[in-house]
Amino acid sequence: MINKIPTLYSKTTSSMKHSFIRQILKVTKGVPGMISFAGGLPSPETFPKDLLADLFARVIREEGDEVLQYGASDGDRVFKEIIKDFEEVPYLSDDEIMITVGSTNGIYYFTRTLVDPGDVVVCEAPGFPGSLAAMEACGARMIGVEMDELGMIPEQLRKTLSDLFGRRRSVKFIYVIPEFQNPTGKTMDLDRRRRIIEIAKEFDLPILEDQPYRELRYTGERIITLWELARTEFDDPKLVTIAKSFSKILGPGLRLGFAAGPPEMLGPMVKWAQKTTVSPDCATQRVTARFIAKGFMREHIKKIISLYRPRRDAMLEALHQNMPGGVSWTVPEGGMFIWVSFDGGVDTDALFERAIAQKVAFIPGSKFYPEGTGKTNEMRLNFSYSSVDQIHEGIKRLAGLII
Amino acid sequence: MINKIPTLYSKTTSSMKHSFIRQILKVTKGVPGMISFAGGLPSPETFPKDLLADLFARVIREEGDEVLQYGASDGDRVFKEIIKDFEEVPYLSDDEIMITVGSTNGIYYFTRTLVDPGDVVVCEAPGFPGSLAAMEACGARMIGVEMDELGMIPEQLRKTLSDLFGRRRSVKFIYVIPEFQNPTGKTMDLDRRRRIIEIAKEFDLPILEDQPYRELRYTGERIITLWELARTEFDDPKLVTIAKSFSKILGPGLRLGFAAGPPEMLGPMVKWAQKTTVSPDCATQRVTARFIAKGFMREHIKKIISLYRPRRDAMLEALHQNMPGGVSWTVPEGGMFIWVSFDGGVDTDALFERAIAQKVAFIPGSKFYPEGTGKTNEMRLNFSYSSVDQIHEGIKRLAGLII
Repeated sequence: MINKIPTLYSKTTSSMKHSFIRQILKVTKGVPGMISFAGGLPSPETFPKDLLADLFARVIREEGDEVLQYGASDGDRVFKEIIKDFEEVPYLSDDEIMITVGSTNGIYYFTRTLVDPGDVVVCEAPGFPGSLAAMEACGARMIGVEMDELGMIPEQLRKTLSDLFGRRRSVKFIYVIPEFQNPTGKTMDLDRRRRIIEIAKEFDLPILEDQPYRELRYTGERIITLWELARTEFDDPKLVTIAKSFSKILGPGLRLGFAAGPPEMLGPMVKWAQKTTVSPDCATQRVTARFIAKGFMREHIKKIISLYRPRRDAMLEALHQNMPGGVSWTVPEGGMFIWVSFDGGVDTDALFERAIAQKVAFIPGSKFYPEGTGKTNEMRLNFSYSSVDQIHEGIKRLAGLII
Repeated sequence: MINKIPTLYSKTTSSMKHSFIRQILKVTKGVPGMISFAGGLPSPETFPKDLLADLFARVIREEGDEVLQYGASDGDRVFKEIIKDFEEVPYLSDDEIMITVGSTNGIYYFTRTLVDPGDVVVCEAPGFPGSLAAMEACGARMIGVEMDELGMIPEQLRKTLSDLFGRRRSVKFIYVIPEFQNPTGKTMDLDRRRRIIEIAKEFDLPILEDQPYRELRYTGERIITLWELARTEFDDPKLVTIAKSFSKILGPGLRLGFAAGPPEMLGPMVKWAQKTTVSPDCATQRVTARFIAKGFMREHIKKIISLYRPRRDAMLEALHQNMPGGVSWTVPEGGMFIWVSFDGGVDTDALFERAIAQKVAFIPGSKFYPEGTGKTNEMRLNFSYSSVDQIHEGIKRLAGLII
């Protein structure tokens, strides 16, 4: 009997961490009466089932010979053209955009392209654990940069990079979610974006811009992406690679996203894709292409916003009505999350157990910090998955545990 | 302007090779009158478009709330149960099977789980470049073992492993395609399978068994897989992990496969999947589940076999009728490929250019050898993609270049 499999594990496999968030989601799933603000799930009410059902049937019947055959690793040409049109970047060449199996997939290939074990990636603290885990799996050492209400603080970023370069650490890139950030819901304004780009240029470091929630804006004006800003205002089309997702505007089960950036990045990323998945699902790509081309997407996004905006408003209102002094929270202009901070004395890791007993769930803030820099007086609340009534009731329960 | 992206590449990215086969396929694609035996594509005639179109529409309409939502990284539970039933392994527990984004995806995760840069993987020579490239991308050093008409030669495998262990090389696993191997079409008989397993046990090394063509058998009796053989006859359920694919029996554009093996392997593989793709396409999984559950798959496989068997027979007949003495070829019992060897004097790398000029394409044998061990007197011919008439005409053209 073979008996040594774990002794054969690669170094990165051996050092892979367990996902605390997955454990939390397991604890909260399927419990009757549980109101969960823990997950990051879109509401199934938003899934355009009938439209997609029809499109899948048509695409497979009409284009089956093509979409059931092997497809290009960088993605379907037809789909790419439609994305360029939808994103209003018709000037992009085909080697500046690739389709990915969800946006995490693009983030993984980006990291895989640049990171050797021990290399440093600089990110927001708190940051999105899904991306951080993908980067750590490639051997990246994640270094978090403190945030204010506008996201990553430029002075802190410069200080962190100066320190890392001074210690001759191999820094590979800067990772940011500039809009409705996960977990904080914070958005970088235009000036902040400019300053982050300036610092990246100063240290000659590429930026990975993660934009999964961009279409879900409930208030305020749309702001130019770092990727477009670098291309236009800074005349630097190679600085930023952007990762986008169809998970929040169509359905995460379809596993579809895309990355846009310089051929120097996308070329190797496509080579990694060849070796990892060969290509994204070809039928799903062509279905999503038709969904956009027929004009369904714009209408559909409006529908999602009209569902999520009242939920955001309800959560903000419920927090205002129920939370005692010494509690503050972000007011996200979009996305799916609100970040709550407690003045002191509240340990959200400890609070979690008591909350579960009262049938309300959240994710403790400590789970969002790169190792060793965590705070325990914060929590992430998701507002996209629960109804307005559940939100009012859930926040009441939560407040009852604090007062 | 950022100007150093290529200097930031990780070591594995920098050392990634260009795919010669992809270049060849580009040269041959879309040329009018070209008869191509070069690719490894299933025939679009085999795609069950109407059945799949209906199933996609039904699944998304009826189960959309579930299949458009985030799914499990190890795959859909419903689909797993149906695969266990189809494969006649109902006793498998859920942590002994995972769904993958095509079988290359499972091969990538298997390798990623075990291989650090510089580690050795032992494979057949010649072998399948798609898998070899995925393994090399993880930093694996591929060491090929010579084959006879029954596949990898046990004495050669033992000698290779003894030598590697003697030199204290870190050997991680043995990779084989025991049935209708790509590129040779060769099949290991039962005795050969037993001997390969014995040697793996002797050196306490796991086996990765790649079985993409198993259902496509045209003559001879089905043989037990190494995976089942190890579980039953050798009472060693942890020795072999098997990778299977729906690409050859349903449609490669759907990107669906699965891996079955010990939880010690699949556990970390699922963790890699979490970080790389999050999960396979959930709608496609449930559609394929219904396709199998409704009994379509068995019928469909019979249909594919009835299309491919005459093509195999035609190619064997055409080779017999047209090739001069000193040329030999394998007689595959299934799959998609025939391997042709020339006595001497024929350099298939040089022949390739002349063949393209005569509008017939193949892949030179040298492309299938791990670096440095190639022979230049062999070629791979695919018979699944061309009609019987095209096969007769194409082989005639090819023979004309040799005589």
